[in-house]
Amino acid sequence: MTETTTAPASANGTASAVRNGVDTATLFATLDAVRGNPEIAKFQFRAGNTWISGTHNQSTIHGFHGAMQEMEHKMPTTLHADHPAVLVGSDEGPTPVEFLLHALAACLTAGIANIAAARGVNLTSVTSTVEGDIDLMGILGLDKSVRNGFQQVKISFKLAGDDADKLTTVVQQSIARSAVYDVLTNGVPVAVEVEAEVAPAAEADTEAEA
Amino acid sequence: MTETTTAPASANGTASAVRNGVDTATLFATLDAVRGNPEIAKFQFRAGNTWISGTHNQSTIHGFHGAMQEMEHKMPTTLHADHPAVLVGSDEGPTPVEFLLHALAACLTAGIANIAAARGVNLTSVTSTVEGDIDLMGILGLDKSVRNGFQQVKISFKLAGDDADKLTTVVQQSIARSAVYDVLTNGVPVAVEVEAEVAPAAEADTEAEA
Repeated sequence: MTETTTAPASANGTASAVRNGVDTATLFATLDAVRGNPEIAKFQFRAGNTWISGTHNQSTIHGFHGAMQEMEHKMPTTLHADHPAVLVGSDEGPTPVEFLLHALAACLTAGIANIAAARGVNLTSVTSTVEGDIDLMGILGLDKSVRNGFQQVKISFKLAGDDADKLTTVVQQSIARSAVYDVLTNGVPVAVEVEAEVAPAAEADTEAEA
Repeated sequence: MTETTTAPASANGTASAVRNGVDTATLFATLDAVRGNPEIAKFQFRAGNTWISGTHNQSTIHGFHGAMQEMEHKMPTTLHADHPAVLVGSDEGPTPVEFLLHALAACLTAGIANIAAARGVNLTSVTSTVEGDIDLMGILGLDKSVRNGFQQVKISFKLAGDDADKLTTVVQQSIARSAVYDVLTNGVPVAVEVEAEVAPAAEADTEAEA
């Protein structure tokens, strides 16, 4: 939660190469590199998901494409998702919609740290709570006038740093440049492909038939 | 990946209370309960996020509101997010946008298991890969004609079970009833609240001034 400065800092910090944990020198160099070759900016992110049982399934996130090459995160991440018991699941992980709330908070917070650093604003702390309201009459198919997804999402930030007015402006700029905020508020085309094959019933069923 | 049947099964499985790991008896009872009192269906999901350093931050998911009461998942889940090194982060977790891909796969897969169970279709396996294409010229502020978020998302399912045609229809129905698919394709209103306060500079800066 506290700022770490790993590069020589002047009295007011303006000469630091690292601010808010952001390597601003590398950040600006990256911007210059992309400006010089826009192909670098074309990324593809991926997840692979496997059904476990009932509403419980897991995704692995590892490889991605970017900067004109195949890349990998330094570690694969496994994420479990499930429905809670009240929604007839085993509660082996958050619900799928809760990951949307995390994604929103994470994207805006990363943007706040980056933009504050680029503008010379020192952050002390950033916390947020995100709430998404959903009426399950939609996904349960009980009321066609109710949408399947969240009716609305609200995120509340508390920030501390060396300039409250500038911090508020930084949040606005993070919203204006957030990938997740854009997807959630404007939507994105989603294509679905399906390959289905017949696989003999599991052994338990075969035994039941005997 | 294999179906477990924990309730008495008939030869063709139609009398099973549990199919694909889904307790269909409880599923139908839940539908009846919600039909009888729509207030039960009003849920609010939440995440709390804390900035760590740079683009690295973490969310905790635990409490939610539903079925007319405050509830909790059986375990809190902590999720880390970061940018990879190529995007000037520390790579301490997936990127925020990758959580959107996981959320989509998780939601559709949970729906497939539920709907297949409700329709008497036995699943053997469900796997999927999700890809999201993003041109970072948008979020880097280098090209105003490029959106911040994904240009498009594609999810490819491979399913196996006892009826390939029915499985394909089950996927279509899962899409038609998915909360995450709805939010991603149609968008959702997002409200942002900001409280910013001045907190004295971190000790490292104070010392630098001395």
